[in-house]
Amino acid sequence: MATVRLLTDEEVRQRPQAWAVFEDIRATRKSDFINNFWRALAHDPAQLERVWTQLKQVMVAEGELPPLVREMIYIAVSTANGCTYCVHSHTAAAKAKGMTDGQHAELLAVIGMAAQTNAMVTALQVPVDEAFDVK
Amino acid sequence: MATVRLLTDEEVRQRPQAWAVFEDIRATRKSDFINNFWRALAHDPAQLERVWTQLKQVMVAEGELPPLVREMIYIAVSTANGCTYCVHSHTAAAKAKGMTDGQHAELLAVIGMAAQTNAMVTALQVPVDEAFDVK
Amino acid sequence: MATVRLLTDEEVRQRPQAWAVFEDIRATRKSDFINNFWRALAHDPAQLERVWTQLKQVMVAEGELPPLVREMIYIAVSTANGCTYCVHSHTAAAKAKGMTDGQHAELLAVIGMAAQTNAMVTALQVPVDEAFDVK
Amino acid sequence: MATVRLLTDEEVRQRPQAWAVFEDIRATRKSDFINNFWRALAHDPAQLERVWTQLKQVMVAEGELPPLVREMIYIAVSTANGCTYCVHSHTAAAKAKGMTDGQHAELLAVIGMAAQTNAMVTALQVPVDEAFDVK
Amino acid sequence: MATVRLLTDEEVRQRPQAWAVFEDIRATRKSDFINNFWRALAHDPAQLERVWTQLKQVMVAEGELPPLVREMIYIAVSTANGCTYCVHSHTAAAKAKGMTDGQHAELLAVIGMAAQTNAMVTALQVPVDEAFDVK
Amino acid sequence: MATVRLLTDEEVRQRPQAWAVFEDIRATRKSDFINNFWRALAHDPAQLERVWTQLKQVMVAEGELPPLVREMIYIAVSTANGCTYCVHSHTAAAKAKGMTDGQHAELLAVIGMAAQTNAMVTALQVPVDEAFDVK
Repeated sequence: MATVRLLTDEEVRQRPQAWAVFEDIRATRKSDFINNFWRALAHDPAQLERVWTQLKQVMVAEGELPPLVREMIYIAVSTANGCTYCVHSHTAAAKAKGMTDGQHAELLAVIGMAAQTNAMVTALQVPVDEAFDVK
Repeated sequence: MATVRLLTDEEVRQRPQAWAVFEDIRATRKSDFINNFWRALAHDPAQLERVWTQLKQVMVAEGELPPLVREMIYIAVSTANGCTYCVHSHTAAAKAKGMTDGQHAELLAVIGMAAQTNAMVTALQVPVDEAFDVK
Repeated sequence: MATVRLLTDEEVRQRPQAWAVFEDIRATRKSDFINNFWRALAHDPAQLERVWTQLKQVMVAEGELPPLVREMIYIAVSTANGCTYCVHSHTAAAKAKGMTDGQHAELLAVIGMAAQTNAMVTALQVPVDEAFDVK
Repeated sequence: MATVRLLTDEEVRQRPQAWAVFEDIRATRKSDFINNFWRALAHDPAQLERVWTQLKQVMVAEGELPPLVREMIYIAVSTANGCTYCVHSHTAAAKAKGMTDGQHAELLAVIGMAAQTNAMVTALQVPVDEAFDVK
Repeated sequence: MATVRLLTDEEVRQRPQAWAVFEDIRATRKSDFINNFWRALAHDPAQLERVWTQLKQVMVAEGELPPLVREMIYIAVSTANGCTYCVHSHTAAAKAKGMTDGQHAELLAVIGMAAQTNAMVTALQVPVDEAFDVK
Repeated sequence: MATVRLLTDEEVRQRPQAWAVFEDIRATRKSDFINNFWRALAHDPAQLERVWTQLKQVMVAEGELPPLVREMIYIAVSTANGCTYCVHSHTAAAKAKGMTDGQHAELLAVIGMAAQTNAMVTALQVPVDEAFDVK
């Protein structure tokens, strides 16, 4: 259960600003499916539009990082932040963008490795080497 | 300051198991520089060897993900875990592996985007869509 | 499922120190309902009393911050810490104290904004400006 | 030290899109001071503009939550996320918006209380009460 | 649901490297039960072997800390990281190693106390005392 | 720098409720040294007293867990929460209570191991085994 009701298409249709976003999500993703996150956000159409617009700029627009790499970074952050929903939705998105089982396994290994050394470094309070300084 | 003393080369040389790791780090990285994390870990040579061996398997060995992509995933996790040292050391490593300013900026954007929606999803407690289920 | 059994009223009644806390919770909240957190804590009556006493001082006692503002701060922390139960219970509490849909949506926006810039600042390792120094 | 160089006004002036943001920050805040976060972000003018625009919408625009309450929520999230820079900058912002010492102390108490019960609830894995369900 | 399928014994048997790990888990724990974590990891037999080998070295091998103390530390970290599965599995493991109800309650108290002061210290940005410096 | 000024003994002496706490800290620890956390908290004497009283109950009072074990759990939580100050102060406290270098190294190993599997489990979204259910 969510802390707000998830809105149905019929309810969103009554909010023109939100409905326009739903139509853009569908057109952008070439799919009729709209996942629960957007149905929860749609209570505040302006916020829905702001978050979706930003997501399109960051995750969909042309850039130097391939979309699959962006999805794997998204999974890494979502994992470290313990967001169950986000891990599920972005793992599904990465698979849809072609993530192989082997890449998924390596992603897990890097996430685990980083989490381990993050914790050890913090427990040791290792000071940053001067060599890492940015001039 | 760290919670243990950082060992100098001279001190590590007196611990043969640790010194062998230092020599392998230098050979693997083709550089004489050994960063502070390993100098802090060297108090326990078995642990030093275990962590370094694992890091080589996960970050250096051949795999399906390019080394630069692995570094960017490492930065993403380190950022979400708030590890100052790790953000510095792996950003330096990513730049050494060719990360461009544009890729760095996109990495930041994805990390920030993910952190934002992670938080919103958690505050909304959005239930996982059935469509994300793995058969 | 919890890592301890949730105690029923009948079981708590047999622990006088715990039962006194349950009676105070009911009197303070003017409601017969006691949520699961307290039923899990009641195994250790001294700890139950300590936590409840502290909660009353921090969340119920007269102060400079209105109770609703305190609840929204509680939701913000619980979200960042990824505590599902706490997000649910304190969102319910905030609504019971009058949080409007508009305030809830703004709370989400601030939480998401903060999480985003927290992550970007950490990835950038921005040094604290001298202007923020407290004399 | 940051993972990118902090840009000076002279450097930003050569990036018209970034300079326009700096001018808007100064006009909006009625102050010549621009803190380091924006100087780090300015390497990517489009990202700088996107984050600043969003911050204005969320933190400055008219809304149902008073600006000071928004700042306290921001501090709460930044604390839970362990963002040193953000805690400093938003505590300074909250003080500039009138946060009293008493309000600051209560904010600390709520943040600490929430963090404590978040951890206890997670260790106990308390199931969400049905009463918290949103119809 | 997991982001990968959980493998049955029959499926693991077809991956000799993974099956050898399953046999070692059973022999080490003197139990036929293999929990879901290993069934999820078994898709990548090399990773399964690496993680299990490490876990044996850290949690099972002779050392200066009693196994029960190690489990309680594991629970503490898992709680702070918000890992539901890990809290459950390691609380079960600690109980199997003799953790009493009283020790469990004290563990909860310490975890909660630490989380609370961690948050207060971070909100206050308390500078480290020179007395804590390691020479 | 902190977000509040650290109070000197002379300033605390003018707040009788806070000064009584300082005297109790000194008597309890049999040391004249008072670390910065308490000097930051002393601005709000009631809060100082509440936190110190709780700390004494949880960390100093007789119990089933030895004081050193409690300190190691405290370090584990502080590490996972990324609290620099707390890692330093509680590592110093653990050493003062007799933590050996070997125990410290094992503590690091367990913390790192837990952080690693926490992350892998979260990325895999492993469902909790029924066997872990508490009846």
